[in-house]
Amino acid sequence: MTFHVYDTTLRDGAQQEGMNLSVADKLAIAPLLDELGVGFIEGGWPGAVPKDTEFFKRAAKELELKNAVLAAFGATRKAGVRAVDDAQVRALLDSEAPVVTLVAKSDIRHAERALRTTGEENLAMITDTIELLVREGRRVVLDAEHFFDGYRFDADYSLQAVLAAFGAGAEVVALCDTNGGMVPRRVTEIVEAVRGAVGPDAILGMHAHNDSGCAVANTLAAVDASVAHVQGTVNGYGERTGNADLLTILANVELKEGRRLLAGDGLRDATRISHAISEITNISPFARQPYVGVSAFAHKAGIHASAIKVDPDLYQHIDPVLVGNDMRMLVSDMAGRASIELKGRELGFDLAGQGELLSRVTHRVKDAEAQGYTYDAADASFELLLREEIDGQRPGYFRVESWRTIVERNGGRGTAATAEATVKLHAGGERQVSTGEGNGPVNALDHALRQALVRVYPEIEEFDLIDFKVRILDQEHGTDATTRVLIETTDGQTSWSTVGVGPNLIEAAWEALTDSAIYGLLHAGVAPR
Amino acid sequence: MTFHVYDTTLRDGAQQEGMNLSVADKLAIAPLLDELGVGFIEGGWPGAVPKDTEFFKRAAKELELKNAVLAAFGATRKAGVRAVDDAQVRALLDSEAPVVTLVAKSDIRHAERALRTTGEENLAMITDTIELLVREGRRVVLDAEHFFDGYRFDADYSLQAVLAAFGAGAEVVALCDTNGGMVPRRVTEIVEAVRGAVGPDAILGMHAHNDSGCAVANTLAAVDASVAHVQGTVNGYGERTGNADLLTILANVELKEGRRLLAGDGLRDATRISHAISEITNISPFARQPYVGVSAFAHKAGIHASAIKVDPDLYQHIDPVLVGNDMRMLVSDMAGRASIELKGRELGFDLAGQGELLSRVTHRVKDAEAQGYTYDAADASFELLLREEIDGQRPGYFRVESWRTIVERNGGRGTAATAEATVKLHAGGERQVSTGEGNGPVNALDHALRQALVRVYPEIEEFDLIDFKVRILDQEHGTDATTRVLIETTDGQTSWSTVGVGPNLIEAAWEALTDSAIYGLLHAGVAPR
Repeated sequence: MTFHVYDTTLRDGAQQEGMNLSVADKLAIAPLLDELGVGFIEGGWPGAVPKDTEFFKRAAKELELKNAVLAAFGATRKAGVRAVDDAQVRALLDSEAPVVTLVAKSDIRHAERALRTTGEENLAMITDTIELLVREGRRVVLDAEHFFDGYRFDADYSLQAVLAAFGAGAEVVALCDTNGGMVPRRVTEIVEAVRGAVGPDAILGMHAHNDSGCAVANTLAAVDASVAHVQGTVNGYGERTGNADLLTILANVELKEGRRLLAGDGLRDATRISHAISEITNISPFARQPYVGVSAFAHKAGIHASAIKVDPDLYQHIDPVLVGNDMRMLVSDMAGRASIELKGRELGFDLAGQGELLSRVTHRVKDAEAQGYTYDAADASFELLLREEIDGQRPGYFRVESWRTIVERNGGRGTAATAEATVKLHAGGERQVSTGEGNGPVNALDHALRQALVRVYPEIEEFDLIDFKVRILDQEHGTDATTRVLIETTDGQTSWSTVGVGPNLIEAAWEALTDSAIYGLLHAGVAPR
Repeated sequence: MTFHVYDTTLRDGAQQEGMNLSVADKLAIAPLLDELGVGFIEGGWPGAVPKDTEFFKRAAKELELKNAVLAAFGATRKAGVRAVDDAQVRALLDSEAPVVTLVAKSDIRHAERALRTTGEENLAMITDTIELLVREGRRVVLDAEHFFDGYRFDADYSLQAVLAAFGAGAEVVALCDTNGGMVPRRVTEIVEAVRGAVGPDAILGMHAHNDSGCAVANTLAAVDASVAHVQGTVNGYGERTGNADLLTILANVELKEGRRLLAGDGLRDATRISHAISEITNISPFARQPYVGVSAFAHKAGIHASAIKVDPDLYQHIDPVLVGNDMRMLVSDMAGRASIELKGRELGFDLAGQGELLSRVTHRVKDAEAQGYTYDAADASFELLLREEIDGQRPGYFRVESWRTIVERNGGRGTAATAEATVKLHAGGERQVSTGEGNGPVNALDHALRQALVRVYPEIEEFDLIDFKVRILDQEHGTDATTRVLIETTDGQTSWSTVGVGPNLIEAAWEALTDSAIYGLLHAGVAPR
């Protein structure tokens, strides 16, 4: 049976707070969705949003989609106007998208109070607009807005809207939980009732939002109750709490029900595609995202570590390879030798049988964590620690002689403070002295360190500090407390995290900064000069 | 009927990647959970984790819980050892927690392959350990680990584990979806089958993880299928994709099913409690989190903007007030003014009818919050802002001329850094110049400021800085990001919180330090000298 995977990342997903996609962004995301293997890509609302009009114009020329067709989103004609005379409807035809998805009111209250028209005229708007589009050769999806809330208020009216759409030639009617408040039990009941009214052959769809935290489960419930068209967005982007996360839905249905929904093997690249789209939307990935999150297959508990080593499938709901993700072991204070050994293997060090080394490293990790270090978020620092314990594995790129940072403000409130730092170190056989300025002391130290090193290690130009976190431990000690600094650095391809700890925040930051430089040079294959 | 709301934020939630809770953190989170109104707080694993042993020791003395009882988490006895001789079991008794939650294998594969024992011995371990604990007067919850996966592999064995637990006196058996791979339909089937086996009166529980993106829905399915004990964590913290988000579950069941699960009206404070816990865990809140996320009721201006204003309930699944959240688009000038007026009244300022002043303050607060200030956690800074707008209400205790802090390290790794600060200010008709040392730059500034002021204002001797928090906003900007510093000060009787924000961490800290001194002097009734 036909099954539609319908992506609305570029339209409904883009409603997310803080997201603002350019035409170029949309043109970059569409091929990734196509690679995933979805059947439909809803590109935007031509006519209503100028950049969406442009998107469809450029997409027709520039995109070569293998699996997906483009859908233009729009609304039914205005009340009291012929469909053919409605400029917004004409713009949908002008977009030349082969599929048009029309949003229509299916809750009598919205027809009356938001559109300020009658229930009857609203039904005529549905019928007329679909008939025109179908006559013009378009495939039509009707998004029955607020369907579930409307059905619970006045089931008869909501069903009339669905029947009007099918009667006018709509290929699909997608039932929308626009406010996102449904729970699966109610979805099941309502979809089953709709199925009874529309007969066995009509294609019903599901469009869910996550306001109850049930968007994925509501979509699964709808699929179980005969829905054959699912709408969603990559990474669950969308207004408020977001839309249903299409990746999670696809993985659940394909991997747990054994049904093939996508055109090819795109699910195996889901993690890469999810992260690539995050890069374009510039919205930080959510670590705990099901299937594709960086933490999705990361194990911390020490009790499990030894068993995981023996039998990984007992500890994961699917093989992460199926969605392009990896199992990761996190080193924590629950850690024993088994998890250190596993972590070492992940980093490319075979520690099997090296009992004494393992004990030494485990001991150091526990000591360090008691001081406030945390390695589960700082793989790079853990690797440097491990290399220190393995003879000759931690290269000496530079030797620090001294550093100093000064922050001062010469004036009262409203005067800006200045920060500068001086670093003296030995590298490349010479003494390097460098001063940097910055917004704050850590920024100034970062600049001074880079300047001191870049003469000898120009590779460091590629490194970019992308995340900086400060955590005060033992807060009850006030400004006298221990501080933990975590920093994340990228070289454009990959990123790594380092940690520093101490009673002095600046000193902790310095430790994380220098570890970051060492790790970056090491993994760029640079030899000490 | 009895219903248990069982929180495991402090134990299973703390398994989240990047989370590392100190004893002080746990002691600060527990009262917030109690305020929410949960019935059980699982505090950790005494005996296995030293800081958890300490937590239970201190909790018994320091925590005054109104609604919740503490539960200690641990494992059944080891194979081949008497329960009474098992040190780990003894530590559970020693914790003196009134409830003990035992994790036990209920999947035959885990008994055989991870524990390397027989199915029979595993059942004996369950029975013996529960019998001992019950004999010693403890209420026992059995966490049937990997129950759902185990049931699908060998239903009979998994049921035997559940029956053994009830037979030995367990009050609850919580069915755990440890790997998080279930979907609601399967949960319904399996819980119904278990109910048939255990009879109508046994209390079954649900412990879900979110690996399929269905943890909340799976828990709702279990409740529909007669489960009367739900486990979860605030903000869905937990290993991999996290545990079921307790806040979402509670809001769904209380607000959509009309069942009362919590001890009081804590749900109305869910948003504040969620964010307060985020501050302690130092894990950035997820904007799209259902119910309590900052975006959860944020509407992007779009087609329905005017309709939302007329009829908000048509566009939201619940009234956000019910979970202490706000519809963001509708935070109008009037609404903002109303809450400022209320807050003013709380602080002893009657602002009723002072329209112009209220507008000015509202405007300043909105501006400041856009820059990163947060007054929810810094009443003292808000009061100073308010006083600034009311003529002559912010006393000028001192005028700062300049300050400077220097942090330096003269040597390589292992050498300690030093921090000193100099403050120049005018107070008591004289110029005061003072230098302080400290563990770090903020500590040094704190010391220098106090020394400069104490000559004129000896009252400041009583003030003690008890909490210092740093939060990096806009983390993607690396060390160039905006920083927020919150500090809490006490005079022995009461405490107050102040906030500072800026690109320079030290400058933000200075702002919070000086505000703290001013507020403290003001409330000690000291006149400017």
